[in-house]
Amino acid sequence: MKWPVHGANPQYLYDALQVDMPQQTIDYSANINPLGPPSIIKERWEELLSVIADYPDPHAAALSLKLSEQEALDPTQILVGNGGAEIISMIGRMLAGKRVMIVQPAFAEYEEACKVNGCSVEYFQLIPDGWQINVDELQGKLNDIDALFITNPNNPTGVYFSKETIKRLIEMGESADCLVIVDEAFYDFVPNYENIVPFVKDYSNLLIIRSMTKMFAIPGIRLGYIMANQKVIRNIKKYQPHWSINAIALKAGEWCLEDEAFAVKTRMLVQNEREKLLRFYHKNHFNISPTHTNFYLLQDSLMTDQRPLFLFLLERGFIPRHTMNFRGLDGDWLRFAIKSPHENFLLMEAFTKWREN
Amino acid sequence: MKWPVHGANPQYLYDALQVDMPQQTIDYSANINPLGPPSIIKERWEELLSVIADYPDPHAAALSLKLSEQEALDPTQILVGNGGAEIISMIGRMLAGKRVMIVQPAFAEYEEACKVNGCSVEYFQLIPDGWQINVDELQGKLNDIDALFITNPNNPTGVYFSKETIKRLIEMGESADCLVIVDEAFYDFVPNYENIVPFVKDYSNLLIIRSMTKMFAIPGIRLGYIMANQKVIRNIKKYQPHWSINAIALKAGEWCLEDEAFAVKTRMLVQNEREKLLRFYHKNHFNISPTHTNFYLLQDSLMTDQRPLFLFLLERGFIPRHTMNFRGLDGDWLRFAIKSPHENFLLMEAFTKWREN
Repeated sequence: MKWPVHGANPQYLYDALQVDMPQQTIDYSANINPLGPPSIIKERWEELLSVIADYPDPHAAALSLKLSEQEALDPTQILVGNGGAEIISMIGRMLAGKRVMIVQPAFAEYEEACKVNGCSVEYFQLIPDGWQINVDELQGKLNDIDALFITNPNNPTGVYFSKETIKRLIEMGESADCLVIVDEAFYDFVPNYENIVPFVKDYSNLLIIRSMTKMFAIPGIRLGYIMANQKVIRNIKKYQPHWSINAIALKAGEWCLEDEAFAVKTRMLVQNEREKLLRFYHKNHFNISPTHTNFYLLQDSLMTDQRPLFLFLLERGFIPRHTMNFRGLDGDWLRFAIKSPHENFLLMEAFTKWREN
Repeated sequence: MKWPVHGANPQYLYDALQVDMPQQTIDYSANINPLGPPSIIKERWEELLSVIADYPDPHAAALSLKLSEQEALDPTQILVGNGGAEIISMIGRMLAGKRVMIVQPAFAEYEEACKVNGCSVEYFQLIPDGWQINVDELQGKLNDIDALFITNPNNPTGVYFSKETIKRLIEMGESADCLVIVDEAFYDFVPNYENIVPFVKDYSNLLIIRSMTKMFAIPGIRLGYIMANQKVIRNIKKYQPHWSINAIALKAGEWCLEDEAFAVKTRMLVQNEREKLLRFYHKNHFNISPTHTNFYLLQDSLMTDQRPLFLFLLERGFIPRHTMNFRGLDGDWLRFAIKSPHENFLLMEAFTKWREN
């Protein structure tokens, strides 16, 4: 069977597994802010109608300026993209033919974007015993590669790597003439995130990828950005199609940045829910990755094969993200987003039923 | 001076020319339907708010199906893109390192997308004496190239090449093992357009690029597609980032296809306006390209240097598209979109003033 790569369109998953899709489903596979988009987008939605009939600004100047102010960088150190996926795709193009290493498990996008551009791809595998990076073990390998991909917090484990760890990687990369690409798609869900953006000024081998679609719950309109040395930005921008970021994303992105309280409120909600869920899972003998963000890996510690649990949930309309195509996980875990209190409650209820099964 | 490539964001043009931008301007540089988006988009705009919080369908299945029905092709012969510009960018990636030829004058995007991917680029220059293609002259050249780019109707001249001409090119390309890439971005403004889509089934070397943003006046949300042999489509799709087409474009695109009367109404309006404008220009000694679509090239036949005319218009808030970066035109012409009756009237008024100047 070919496993659909992306859980966010669940019909593909049900079709592939030949399971009837219940009328009512809840999708725990997409790690999107449970609060939904900031209210400013709903309130000013009507205004966005006026931007569709003109070409979007090809330089995304207004949004880049706002981002550069927020991140205390020069606008030339930032490039806005049509979602994080486009950024990854352009990085892959820039790295064509090079040797890259991916800290695994990870998004499939890094590997795909590199392989389609003829890169040789190696893996540095994290293991369930805490899922942390053994930096010393990684050190010797950097001399043989041109770029290292790492997601922080990691996806799918949710495990967060400290600023000190990332700094060591960047410095090791610098000595070894190796780019260090840190994908911070979920950084703003981490309660005590330590800002690594200032390193962009000091290290020309650092690339930071950000997404605006997870925190602001706008994956439908696509918005991400990359921060790096001017030379890297110029290099990547060459591969970006004209008018790649649509006008709605540009305008809504500006509005999102104005609502500073939104991320704070979200982090508090997610933290409360995370603690509640972890208590429940530990009590009920599920293994959970030590997440610091809005999703987690889960495994029923009482069984080897997690597939019956996966099917049990799907049949009842609870849609986890399978891990068949996460290297080194191979389906041994299921990933869940932390959603609204009510949706998390329903999920715990389903697990209680599973235990009674 | 560096001429801004795209006129659609006029502030960049005024800045580059150091001309004060008047408070009131009319932009004739973007060739967008003067009717604006179909009313269904305005009426159902509220519904689109609900699609932003979910990932878009990465396979664009519903829209692809609708397009395949409209074009009488298999959905596997169609790929939806984040605007025509993304399609061109992916084709450039596919052609990496190859030898391409561009029928000029043309969009700058073909050349840029090819050059950034290390293609060698040659040009087949059309000339003001009718701007038609001398197919016999082109024939001998196809053996030395891997792909030919041609826009039909041509941009910026608006000149339309007959089905017979295109068919000869495709057949010559087939014999010479050369892809023929026909960009039909403005095909639906041509009153007697002859459909070449059925050739996709017969010729594996034919690629047709379409845009939905011109006819449906939605350049802000980005939407285009390509039609070609399945193998070509698979090849190109490899280079497309995940979720590249935003959810609003996918849904609005479906709605646009349902409004069949819209393009008919638009063609009638544009044809009436075109005839009115051409009569005026001929009477007043302006050279005009023999356009069949919603834009045209213009030159004051009484002067060699068109720059004073360009500045005269800009200072009064009339924004043409300069042709400094159209190979073989080098600023000798100005391009104008055919806009609403009132806007076209104002433009003719401005030309009358120019004549009295």
